[in-house]
Amino acid sequence: MTNASAPQRLRGVLSPVVTPFKADLSPDAARFVRHCKWLLANGCAGLAVFGTNSEANSLSAEERMVLLEELVQAGVPAAKLVPGTGCCALTDTVRLSAHATALGCAGVLMLPPFYYKGVSDEGVYRSFAETIERVGDARLAVYLYHIPPVSQVPVSFAVIERLLDRYPGSVAGIKDSSGDWANTQALNERFGARGFDVFAGSETFLLRNMHAGGAGCITAGANVNPGPIDRLFRNWQAPDAEAQQAAIDAVRAALQKFPMIAALKATVAHYAGDPDWRTVRPPLVELTPAQESELFAALQALGFDMPGIRA
Amino acid sequence: MTNASAPQRLRGVLSPVVTPFKADLSPDAARFVRHCKWLLANGCAGLAVFGTNSEANSLSAEERMVLLEELVQAGVPAAKLVPGTGCCALTDTVRLSAHATALGCAGVLMLPPFYYKGVSDEGVYRSFAETIERVGDARLAVYLYHIPPVSQVPVSFAVIERLLDRYPGSVAGIKDSSGDWANTQALNERFGARGFDVFAGSETFLLRNMHAGGAGCITAGANVNPGPIDRLFRNWQAPDAEAQQAAIDAVRAALQKFPMIAALKATVAHYAGDPDWRTVRPPLVELTPAQESELFAALQALGFDMPGIRA
Repeated sequence: MTNASAPQRLRGVLSPVVTPFKADLSPDAARFVRHCKWLLANGCAGLAVFGTNSEANSLSAEERMVLLEELVQAGVPAAKLVPGTGCCALTDTVRLSAHATALGCAGVLMLPPFYYKGVSDEGVYRSFAETIERVGDARLAVYLYHIPPVSQVPVSFAVIERLLDRYPGSVAGIKDSSGDWANTQALNERFGARGFDVFAGSETFLLRNMHAGGAGCITAGANVNPGPIDRLFRNWQAPDAEAQQAAIDAVRAALQKFPMIAALKATVAHYAGDPDWRTVRPPLVELTPAQESELFAALQALGFDMPGIRA
Repeated sequence: MTNASAPQRLRGVLSPVVTPFKADLSPDAARFVRHCKWLLANGCAGLAVFGTNSEANSLSAEERMVLLEELVQAGVPAAKLVPGTGCCALTDTVRLSAHATALGCAGVLMLPPFYYKGVSDEGVYRSFAETIERVGDARLAVYLYHIPPVSQVPVSFAVIERLLDRYPGSVAGIKDSSGDWANTQALNERFGARGFDVFAGSETFLLRNMHAGGAGCITAGANVNPGPIDRLFRNWQAPDAEAQQAAIDAVRAALQKFPMIAALKATVAHYAGDPDWRTVRPPLVELTPAQESELFAALQALGFDMPGIRA
């Protein structure tokens, strides 16, 4: 264990940043840096780069490490970064987590291994515990990533309890993308008092999560709508909080009518005037022109904008 | 495209070889080589190393490449190897597939990208097509890997049709681990005449697959029971074929009462007299002593043996 102290905890709105690709499908570091800086200047308290909406699992471990270094070298503060590091292979997860921690990242967002289905709590616990032991760095701050609709492997309360008992300084919180508010609420009730920061996995739960004592949200929608989501985070006790929530929900609903990642990239492309942003890696596909038209019309009808995104 | 010709097609029984680990969870090349050689000497026509039962997705790309090279250097013929190469990231899949093909492997067993769920046929097609294009080697022989119970991402008939139309020389066949005989039968009927080799994903379908014109099976059970499975492959028209099938089914059923990979490793450990074989990587866990006792008693009652496995 190195003895350097843990980084400062982030609260607020974090974006799982969409990853731009060039025409040859290689990551486009220049666009990535530009979008990360725009997000931090427009409401994001931090960036959960390499999340589900970042197509992180469509990148090799090397590609992720190179991109992370490029971000930091370009002046994006590591203290604002919570990169996704959970892979199917223990050795990859350890390598990415150690790398991010050594760079000074605020934390790491860690999926459980997700190839095998129906695995036991014991196996999921061992995956996280072995990773924490192998990284062996007191600065490591793990945010567990619970997203059963995609990973199909949940992070159970029993696993969280065991991890908090054994590694209280290393397990910092969770991103709950279950889509089940009852689960998010129960996480706050059961673990909130232990310094375990609960982030809702969608802005649609932000107001409820703040009432429940949560730390904010880590949400795809923050890629395009960070300002209004952050405004609600900072003003959740304001009289118009419900109206703010309804307004950000409407934008989310417009996006969610389509495959989310392609819709987010199309939206960035459109508002930035930069069509190359639409590129996705297989197995994802871009929106069709008809889908794009429908999406942009819906967003316009909502008065949606991305101020300052045009380079 | 390099112009070297495609390797000779394998038929018969292929084993997705279990991967041994040392106490520190690193791959154990010496045990791996020994088991691979035992399998080839005892009925396996080929080795689908790095399959689901190999914990392949619990290995990094580098770990797989190193192990594959160690196998070949140790005298396991590349022409007998069909390593699994399908990862979530296109770049990893391309790298592993190109590496295996350059080593002279008989083929590669390719999962579709499996992190994102509910992806379109277009996206799955692009994943395979882009990989074939990027490998750009006429020796590449792709065996598609259809295992929806685990990957959750199927390889549909529409995708196969498109791939066979576009890359007839590169798409060699499929391992059907759907567990659905109707699917395996339909694959033979629809694509068998186009030189598309259909391997059942379990020995329990071997006799039916041979009657349907299939090429054999690629099956976990072949890790421990290769002789009897191969005997049925070679004698599927014999009068006692049904009885042979019933006997290998009974062994499979005994194993399947437990988590399959841990059960296979426990069985190898027991019959080889080599307890270190039991080690699995998280998120898997070893069988308990009680589970082991029950398994070994069941196998013994069936007259099961692994002749010559003891070093």
